[in-house]
Amino acid sequence: LPIMRESELLEAILADPPPVRAGNGDLSGVPVGPGDDLAVLSLATGVQLLVGVDQVVDGVHVDASNTPWDRIAVKAVGRCVSDVAAMAARPLASVIAVTLPRESSAASLKALRVSLGAAADALAAPLVGGDIAVHRADGPLTIAVTVLATMHGPRCVLRSGAQRGDRVFVSGVLGGAWQADGGGRHLDPSPRVALGQALLDILGDELHAMIDVSDGLGRDVARVAVASDVSVELDGSALPCAPGATWRQAIGDGEDYELCFTVGGAIEVPDVLADVPLTCVGTCAPAGGGPPVMVRTPEGELQDAGVMGWDHGA
Amino acid sequence: LPIMRESELLEAILADPPPVRAGNGDLSGVPVGPGDDLAVLSLATGVQLLVGVDQVVDGVHVDASNTPWDRIAVKAVGRCVSDVAAMAARPLASVIAVTLPRESSAASLKALRVSLGAAADALAAPLVGGDIAVHRADGPLTIAVTVLATMHGPRCVLRSGAQRGDRVFVSGVLGGAWQADGGGRHLDPSPRVALGQALLDILGDELHAMIDVSDGLGRDVARVAVASDVSVELDGSALPCAPGATWRQAIGDGEDYELCFTVGGAIEVPDVLADVPLTCVGTCAPAGGGPPVMVRTPEGELQDAGVMGWDHGA
Repeated sequence: LPIMRESELLEAILADPPPVRAGNGDLSGVPVGPGDDLAVLSLATGVQLLVGVDQVVDGVHVDASNTPWDRIAVKAVGRCVSDVAAMAARPLASVIAVTLPRESSAASLKALRVSLGAAADALAAPLVGGDIAVHRADGPLTIAVTVLATMHGPRCVLRSGAQRGDRVFVSGVLGGAWQADGGGRHLDPSPRVALGQALLDILGDELHAMIDVSDGLGRDVARVAVASDVSVELDGSALPCAPGATWRQAIGDGEDYELCFTVGGAIEVPDVLADVPLTCVGTCAPAGGGPPVMVRTPEGELQDAGVMGWDHGA
Repeated sequence: LPIMRESELLEAILADPPPVRAGNGDLSGVPVGPGDDLAVLSLATGVQLLVGVDQVVDGVHVDASNTPWDRIAVKAVGRCVSDVAAMAARPLASVIAVTLPRESSAASLKALRVSLGAAADALAAPLVGGDIAVHRADGPLTIAVTVLATMHGPRCVLRSGAQRGDRVFVSGVLGGAWQADGGGRHLDPSPRVALGQALLDILGDELHAMIDVSDGLGRDVARVAVASDVSVELDGSALPCAPGATWRQAIGDGEDYELCFTVGGAIEVPDVLADVPLTCVGTCAPAGGGPPVMVRTPEGELQDAGVMGWDHGA
């Protein structure tokens, strides 16, 4: 069997999602199903509930042999809560499934449990349940975090709402989050929950689409472009690069956990919101049949930015 | 580091759970936190929501090399929905995280995705979201299923409600669900969702405690006994053994996904409910400081039943 890259697998599997059926009278609909950062459920009581799951796997997303438990916990919960930020929603609670290596001490696992609880509390997604399994043969630590969230304001923000003419913004700085030794900013994500909500508050209906930058700006913007049926041109010279990072790293590295969003009309976007700098990095145009996201290099050349994304499974 | 059994790990980690904080104004309380089959969240809107997560790990819960995708999917979703049955609740929706072996073909994963969706639909817990990761080094298939559920009737049924004098019942037949070749009934669980709801309907307040039998009747009844501060004596001669299973297997094998519940007062419990036979297998007494669950063998001897439970991590 050929070894596949994660993105190819995902595309193969998600290309033809079965329709979501509402089998229980308490579920009146699923306005947003698989494919966005979180799913949205409409309950018969009128409540709208958001839910999603994300994972940290040793050897893929962290190097557990070289990373303290509390950093692993912060990353695992932070990755998932970053999806809540991307919907402009509010974290509600979390449940966590952990699969442990065969040789695990009670002390180290107690530390992981306490760290996960503390990370979930700090991100306002208190840990209300979980499951622990232990590999019988060799196998790495895996942590699957499910987060529940509620709506902030009248709607949440999807990947699919970008329109031709929208400006494209990113928060914070990008690139170099994963250092060669396995350390770096990716172990200390700051999910932009307050920022996502503040953007919806001040931009209202002009906040068209949003995603968090986990797999690299180029790859994640491509998801917005494809879902919205637009194309995006990024300005390589405008990217807010992290100290020491090149513009190519800002597009391709990933693990930044910043927000990328598109804004319509002429509404002013502040330079800083919720203490986070915001930078305009591109514009949306009609989908042209070519790559969904191109970047204009500082030398003036147009290159495909969607293939610069860092791929966990590569 | 010593190799630990799963139950020891769980006990070490759960012995001192941090308090659940309600960090979001939308969450007014967590009436049931970690430690029962599912957690119960009280939303500020008045809605009560149940949530829990359960896993299937290749080499622990299934032998993936020898089991078709659709059986793995049915078991993974069924295990989790069985927890909904044990609360006498109603499945609402599910999200699933999958970690794949490095050598995985798109075709086989597509089959798994379709099988998970079909299994979730069949159990009225439609799959609304998920995440896929691919091991970079060697590592087994893991599937973490999170299920959301809603209340059926005025309350759900906890592990902690058993009282001295209660009769203890089980549904269906027990023992031998896992055959030596990895096959058997454990791959075809029938979560007793309709039964759990029907029990609450007809027994009302006299349905004191309930759990699903996943780790073995002895071990699971011990969880009820400890949570309820009672002791239980099982009648080895009364156990409804599966064809070919001994009474010891009925207590120790696990993976039955039947319900075990305790009933107060003199209310009559039918022999069959929701097409499932019900059998009285024991009684509750005050906790006596000894093992929480004893079984009277057909020879009249009392033995500790809580240590006969099958342990996934052993």
